[in-house]
Amino acid sequence: MRPPIPLLLGSALLVAQGANADALRDRANAIFKPIPEKVTEVRGQQVSEDQARLGHQLWFDPRLSRSHVISCNTCHNLSIGGSDNVTTSIGHGWQKGPRNSPTVLNAVFNAAQFWDGRAKDLQEQAKGPVQASVEMNNSPERVVQTLKSIPQYAEAFAQAFPNDKDPVSFDNMAYALEAFEVGLITPNAPFDRYLAGDDAALDEQQKKGLALFMDTGCTACHNGVNLGGQNYFPFGVVKRPGADILPESDKGRFAVTNTASDEYVFRAAPLRNVALTPPYFHSGEVWELEQAVAIMGDSQLGRELNATEVSSITAFLHSLTGDQPQVAYPILPPSTATTPKPE
Amino acid sequence: MRPPIPLLLGSALLVAQGANADALRDRANAIFKPIPEKVTEVRGQQVSEDQARLGHQLWFDPRLSRSHVISCNTCHNLSIGGSDNVTTSIGHGWQKGPRNSPTVLNAVFNAAQFWDGRAKDLQEQAKGPVQASVEMNNSPERVVQTLKSIPQYAEAFAQAFPNDKDPVSFDNMAYALEAFEVGLITPNAPFDRYLAGDDAALDEQQKKGLALFMDTGCTACHNGVNLGGQNYFPFGVVKRPGADILPESDKGRFAVTNTASDEYVFRAAPLRNVALTPPYFHSGEVWELEQAVAIMGDSQLGRELNATEVSSITAFLHSLTGDQPQVAYPILPPSTATTPKPE
Repeated sequence: MRPPIPLLLGSALLVAQGANADALRDRANAIFKPIPEKVTEVRGQQVSEDQARLGHQLWFDPRLSRSHVISCNTCHNLSIGGSDNVTTSIGHGWQKGPRNSPTVLNAVFNAAQFWDGRAKDLQEQAKGPVQASVEMNNSPERVVQTLKSIPQYAEAFAQAFPNDKDPVSFDNMAYALEAFEVGLITPNAPFDRYLAGDDAALDEQQKKGLALFMDTGCTACHNGVNLGGQNYFPFGVVKRPGADILPESDKGRFAVTNTASDEYVFRAAPLRNVALTPPYFHSGEVWELEQAVAIMGDSQLGRELNATEVSSITAFLHSLTGDQPQVAYPILPPSTATTPKPE
Repeated sequence: MRPPIPLLLGSALLVAQGANADALRDRANAIFKPIPEKVTEVRGQQVSEDQARLGHQLWFDPRLSRSHVISCNTCHNLSIGGSDNVTTSIGHGWQKGPRNSPTVLNAVFNAAQFWDGRAKDLQEQAKGPVQASVEMNNSPERVVQTLKSIPQYAEAFAQAFPNDKDPVSFDNMAYALEAFEVGLITPNAPFDRYLAGDDAALDEQQKKGLALFMDTGCTACHNGVNLGGQNYFPFGVVKRPGADILPESDKGRFAVTNTASDEYVFRAAPLRNVALTPPYFHSGEVWELEQAVAIMGDSQLGRELNATEVSSITAFLHSLTGDQPQVAYPILPPSTATTPKPE
């Protein structure tokens, strides 16, 4: 009887592939971390269900804006990847914001918030757009007046912050929003299943893309649980992109630190769900993920990636799309006669 | 043994009240109808779950608008009574619409849609705002191009309209929206429970208000399941309100029929959930329900209602708030390279 040679050969090949596969995964596991199933803590403190529930209502409440038309969800839309998929957000009076809206999904894993990291956490971040004249155009006083005018909100704040003498505050509004936002995570992406040992979760092109992503040095900035969001780097480490993509007027983190070396420095974009959140970069002028990958190779690594490499890395980036948070569209408590009118 | 007179007296009183209560309810049941538990039909045809599910996604999809920022829900917000609670809606380019946004809740029970009834049903209605230059500012061609560029939408349309050769159409988009909207009803209002025999569902003031609502003739226009929405009447039957409330330039149904007698004629506003949907009238210039009631008495009935009467009728109107529809915030299929960009 002839031994089944093709089968033996096949087995040998599988063993070799298995070893390579494990090596790739081991390398990846040393650089990246999976999204956990659940986050219920803020800075080491457990958030309460009452806080998260209140934050859920506030998140969708357009009355946080002066016009009563714009909510947090307008620019961080949970149905389309936690961002708004326009170049830069449209705010009060149809003004266009200066930078592309970052996704709220997994934002809890970022070291700081905004493209320039000017808010140290989500509570601080939440206060920004509410007051920004080009966004929600409201004031803390008017927001508090609005919330206090609505009895069910007053009750919900008292329940969410039982130890506060004056629970309806701008700080607590922001904390409640943060308590909701920490739940907006996207576990179970193909890449996370791969990290956990499921070899079939990525296809061959995606594995090539993962290897390239590590080999070419993308991981110098894009690592950890969020593949970015942890540190600051100049856009154009090697070669500065054109003014269409990197407008001269926006000097990034320089505006926060006033330090010359921070000119055109931005927080490395977190890449989770990046396939869902075009257009790309802080200027939001690049719509194709492939083009964004090529620009990064050129400007950050000084390497002209070929079409196959770009496709492989892009395929890998698609594996970062996780389970999107399922939330109810909340019923909001009605305004009263003393609620400030929209302007 | 002395008979327990006070108790007997009490019983007699209860019997008398009972008879009055039944008489009031009988009168009410002859004029109004409760909201049913469920509606799943459109013009006698059962809508499919696939159609309603697709409509649910389209309802929240901002890509139906040219800017990719405005969805149906922007102006008919399901978290605040199916309307937007601003004077007139803010649309493309921050333009203000000409009339206050009517609620989508229970709109299926209206004889026709829009303040002037120019759309015969919800499918026809849905096509209006998508194309209106001051609202979503889109075109049917561009909407269809957008939907066809998204494979999951193409599949969902094929599933929802299995007998259509070209299922992704503007007509089918509107039909799917209608299929979702027929489910946006609010049963179980205190008033409906009262109509069904629960005497405690309305308090004494609300019952007085109900009696007044019928006695003074409000029911001439506001009757049936939606307490309105069935027919057209001049605003100012008896006395025309001021130009702030009834602007001269908006001649109402005249624009639809071109008939002199239709000048300043509008569809009687349906009053379900009216407490949730300020501001009032087509001009949206009246924020207090009490004031709206007083104006109606004056302009439509020629009767100056006193403060007690206004309060009672207003209390009754509050009993028309039913269970708000609980819907999920849907996850939308992502755009592709061929999806038209926001403008």
